[in-house]
Amino acid sequence: MRAAIFNGPRDITVGDRPDPAITEPTDAVVRVVLGCVCGSDLWYYRGQSPKVPGAIGHEFIGVVEQVGSNVGTLSEGDFVIAPFLYSDGTCVICRDGWTSQCLSGGGYGNDTGGGQGELVRVPLADGTLVKVPGSGHSDEAMRSMLALSDVMCTGHHAAVSGGVKDGSVVAVVGDGAVGLSAVLAARRLGAERIIALSRNPARQALAREFGATDIVAERGEAAVAAVRELTGGLGVEAALECVGTGESMTTAFDIARSGSVVGAVGAPHGVQVPIDTVIFRNVGLMGGVSPARRYIPELLDDVLAGRINPGRVFDFETDLAGIAQAYAAIDERRAIKSLVRVGLL
Amino acid sequence: MRAAIFNGPRDITVGDRPDPAITEPTDAVVRVVLGCVCGSDLWYYRGQSPKVPGAIGHEFIGVVEQVGSNVGTLSEGDFVIAPFLYSDGTCVICRDGWTSQCLSGGGYGNDTGGGQGELVRVPLADGTLVKVPGSGHSDEAMRSMLALSDVMCTGHHAAVSGGVKDGSVVAVVGDGAVGLSAVLAARRLGAERIIALSRNPARQALAREFGATDIVAERGEAAVAAVRELTGGLGVEAALECVGTGESMTTAFDIARSGSVVGAVGAPHGVQVPIDTVIFRNVGLMGGVSPARRYIPELLDDVLAGRINPGRVFDFETDLAGIAQAYAAIDERRAIKSLVRVGLL
Repeated sequence: MRAAIFNGPRDITVGDRPDPAITEPTDAVVRVVLGCVCGSDLWYYRGQSPKVPGAIGHEFIGVVEQVGSNVGTLSEGDFVIAPFLYSDGTCVICRDGWTSQCLSGGGYGNDTGGGQGELVRVPLADGTLVKVPGSGHSDEAMRSMLALSDVMCTGHHAAVSGGVKDGSVVAVVGDGAVGLSAVLAARRLGAERIIALSRNPARQALAREFGATDIVAERGEAAVAAVRELTGGLGVEAALECVGTGESMTTAFDIARSGSVVGAVGAPHGVQVPIDTVIFRNVGLMGGVSPARRYIPELLDDVLAGRINPGRVFDFETDLAGIAQAYAAIDERRAIKSLVRVGLL
Repeated sequence: MRAAIFNGPRDITVGDRPDPAITEPTDAVVRVVLGCVCGSDLWYYRGQSPKVPGAIGHEFIGVVEQVGSNVGTLSEGDFVIAPFLYSDGTCVICRDGWTSQCLSGGGYGNDTGGGQGELVRVPLADGTLVKVPGSGHSDEAMRSMLALSDVMCTGHHAAVSGGVKDGSVVAVVGDGAVGLSAVLAARRLGAERIIALSRNPARQALAREFGATDIVAERGEAAVAAVRELTGGLGVEAALECVGTGESMTTAFDIARSGSVVGAVGAPHGVQVPIDTVIFRNVGLMGGVSPARRYIPELLDDVLAGRINPGRVFDFETDLAGIAQAYAAIDERRAIKSLVRVGLL
């Protein structure tokens, strides 16, 4: 099969890799229709995190090509969304909803093939893949389904972790694809006021489209002052941290109302949690890797009903041959998120 | 009036201070019956935190002596529990339950007199003081009411923050008065298994009396290994951090099951939150200063019904003249918590 191959920092090519095959009776092989590039892919792309050369990509939707003998809920030809981690759905941790911590789960790699390639072996297929009902879905709906494989579920997890509910006053730190998805998720959960921190006009516009009521273009202490002014000095009821840097975490805690919770989903780099704020201002910290598999069904209902359109975060697209451009566009911040058309439905 | 006076580290005496008087129409003056010494008092006692010389003590029960003209719910002669912070109960933060963050609230000091003295001016008396129903309460019940002014509510807050519920598997890091109270609180909330980390035989015994099902005497990595072995390798569903040191916080996160929450109430000294555990193992962090005023009514019901006996943490007692001994006994770890008999009911 044809697949994107990571050779080293800023060196991604397309080449031939062996077709993944069923190796466990609980596996399925999925033919990828749409894949995309994640903000977390940039860490190895930029050489900031180690990465074994080879298969890449962990977000995809596609068609079941083959199922193992123990797969009971899926058949060849099913159209599915693959969450970015596989999970059995049956262990004690999954049953508690933490599919991102499945005792038998894991991520895609050279042993499975990646979502930026034509075929992927999906372990624990019954627990992992979410079958999409119906047929003839529009391209817009398909893009939004792709967003459910990671980015929208991650933004949703920030909002859920921050305790966003009907009437909440929320701020979102980070205007990347995850931050914008967190805006949409907060709106969906009923937030009354959503302050998006962004200085980029295109991202500000999408934040507004997704439901942001206020934009704060300042950063650091000036951003904190601006959010506090917008909230009568109190700060927000839920601060959603969607970046993962020390500055963004500090900002999130500083704009959080006493007694609130920071919902944090950014992969941490140089973060120090302000423990004095946790203890003396009663600001909690919840979040982490999204248990996407838990969230996909409810979000898919809203995508299929046209109530949310999270695929709007994809503002660059290419085919598999253009994969290097898909990375470069995000790396250079020319794009919010890059979609890759890998195969036909 | 006679009152304990902080002169400087390890220098606490008893002397005369002016009687507190009503200065705001929302004040009450309370004649202290029982007071006590808090673990947090040791920070200034040991010279580890700065402290203005003068009045000390923030936990007390007593009798209303006088009320301001705007106090509506209390009368002279009412027997009351004073939470360790005063709060109006009406601001937006209090209405959310975070009385520890009241916009008009604060703590006791030289302007009010402290709980280790004969009289205290309690600001915002209607919002703050909890009237105890009935009369003729036993000394045992009175000691437990005193525990509700801080330590039991703080342990309870650890358990609530950690999400303890019916059937939970819990561990408590810290065998001080707060940790022991957290054991009792976890039991009260229905925890099925409670692992107390303690190497002190007297504290182990009280932990068992309060509901601990297992004792782990190890510390650090050995404690983590022991708790993991007791929990099938998974860790606990709620780790309650009741110390506030770097080691205790690390232990709490390391014994926390993926997808669980660390309930932390220890005043932090040298704590670094392991952000990778928060993000990559989905272990949240909630807690902080207990909103005691929120919790007292429900806990008081259980004290009055004899269902809990949190006053058992007091294993040293003296009168006001012996206040220096009350501090020394805790400082030297001869006592878990010291009670001070200040006046008669």
